[in-house]
Amino acid sequence: MGADSRDDEFGLIAKFFAPLAAAESGALGLLDDAAVLSRDDGDLVVTTDALISGVHFLSDDPPPDIARKALRVNLSDLAAMGATARAYTLAIALPDTVSADWLSGFAGGLAADQEAFAVTLIGGDTVATPGPLMISITALGSCPGGAPVRRSGARPGDRIFVSGTIGDAALGLRIRRGELSARREDQKALIDRYRLPRPRVSVGPRLVGVATAMIDVSDGLAADLEHILSASGVGATIDSAEVPLSAGVRHLIDSEPALVQQMLTGGDDYELLFTVSEDRVADIAALSSELAVPLTTIGLIECGRELTIMGPDGISIAPGEGGYRHF
Amino acid sequence: MGADSRDDEFGLIAKFFAPLAAAESGALGLLDDAAVLSRDDGDLVVTTDALISGVHFLSDDPPPDIARKALRVNLSDLAAMGATARAYTLAIALPDTVSADWLSGFAGGLAADQEAFAVTLIGGDTVATPGPLMISITALGSCPGGAPVRRSGARPGDRIFVSGTIGDAALGLRIRRGELSARREDQKALIDRYRLPRPRVSVGPRLVGVATAMIDVSDGLAADLEHILSASGVGATIDSAEVPLSAGVRHLIDSEPALVQQMLTGGDDYELLFTVSEDRVADIAALSSELAVPLTTIGLIECGRELTIMGPDGISIAPGEGGYRHF
Repeated sequence: MGADSRDDEFGLIAKFFAPLAAAESGALGLLDDAAVLSRDDGDLVVTTDALISGVHFLSDDPPPDIARKALRVNLSDLAAMGATARAYTLAIALPDTVSADWLSGFAGGLAADQEAFAVTLIGGDTVATPGPLMISITALGSCPGGAPVRRSGARPGDRIFVSGTIGDAALGLRIRRGELSARREDQKALIDRYRLPRPRVSVGPRLVGVATAMIDVSDGLAADLEHILSASGVGATIDSAEVPLSAGVRHLIDSEPALVQQMLTGGDDYELLFTVSEDRVADIAALSSELAVPLTTIGLIECGRELTIMGPDGISIAPGEGGYRHF
Repeated sequence: MGADSRDDEFGLIAKFFAPLAAAESGALGLLDDAAVLSRDDGDLVVTTDALISGVHFLSDDPPPDIARKALRVNLSDLAAMGATARAYTLAIALPDTVSADWLSGFAGGLAADQEAFAVTLIGGDTVATPGPLMISITALGSCPGGAPVRRSGARPGDRIFVSGTIGDAALGLRIRRGELSARREDQKALIDRYRLPRPRVSVGPRLVGVATAMIDVSDGLAADLEHILSASGVGATIDSAEVPLSAGVRHLIDSEPALVQQMLTGGDDYELLFTVSEDRVADIAALSSELAVPLTTIGLIECGRELTIMGPDGISIAPGEGGYRHF
């Protein structure tokens, strides 16, 4: 683990981060130039995500949650390939306002999630920044069950499935910002969905050899489905009435129907969006009940290149601008 | 490759960065959630470094040089393990002042170094930041010739070697900042050493099975030797008069002898510092002439835990504060 030689405050890092690497002998105690991972079964699957304070999390979010979010968005990317995470590296740029308490909380969040997800820190770098706090994590995993599930395998006739419920995180963020109010009993649950992703690590690896294409819902349901369509060279129709909603989101949309747009385009749900050929649909139902995770069909892959979203009244609606990224 | 969904400017990224991933099929065109690397011989070696504008490079440095420096410091870390780089991921936080020209230059620098060092971009993330530009690269490599060389294997009686010349980068930075002036013929060469590291990729992998410990000189000769001593549980004596100097550094020290301190403690040289048992010293001489890279012995590993640096007059000198990091 490198450390910025120009700031002695970072002696703190040894205290907070070295213990996170103790379980992986290849991390070399974070004391070497690089980490060494022995080979296990399957190809290596690698992903990187960067988060910036004020953009991807709020600066007054609890430090353990910031840490866990930074790690979990990467675990979600691996799950979306059908891969299981094994190790990660952490690069963190710290403004001088960061206290030892903050770092302790941040490292504590990582420690809790290392336990929860069986991953280990194997290296990284800490630098001082005059700007906002930034975290960049690269997670490494493997896919011993078969070839990783890519975005490009969706074929006309495939059913489109999504795990869990959609829209919670985007509406939770608006509540957190005071732009929207929800019933008292929903408020906490929705904000919590924004604050802390639950990567579908139990589901993703089980879809290797089953799903024809998969992605995690980070940019928004419509945008992420577009990513699959574009990579696969296909079109799709989904029915917004079929999109699984939590009680909180259902209630918000019932009282303000225009929010259906934000449900479809808001990001940060970290559910899995995947396609399955017709003959494997029964397997998905079985998997859903085995894992006790809702896996709901919301539409169909078609020829062409268009995404059509049917509105609640049966008329197709434009997915809007919210989460769109044609990249 | 993820991209920040909130800023359309980053459609540019597809244009600039996707071509860098074309050679590695496992990069999946940067279009998927993660990259897939097939296993080759040997363990996987992983390193991460973060660079921030104004701290690790100057904001008006040429963008191709910034890109190359960010990549090369990682290649140097891999070389210091005896590993050869294969692929890398890039996370970059861009302030809104960054132009398409800047990005084009940055990507061009990466492309040139991908060619020079046979590595490929396999994934990453681009985000907008209200702060300074930050680059975080994670490089992946392997060490097919044997076990990676760690910092912890130095034993009493081992000779200490360093590649190339020491102090150029630290004094080059001071010249660049206008704090020091050098002879006209030395000025450019010294600044260039700071601006653009030359990772010793030809040397590092050849030291697998030969060097007992190795590190790259990034924090400074004294600090990085301390890292080896601390990891190995040994002491050392080096002779400052034996440290190999370029003509430019030699001339500066001749006219201002106090600069020897900065030569010993300044960072960013990215030479290799390694230890070799007495019976392999002849192999180092042979390797030096085969590769046409100076590999110079500067001291001896000893019992104890102390680093003693002999000054030019034979009296031991304190290494000072410059690059010290006890981590």
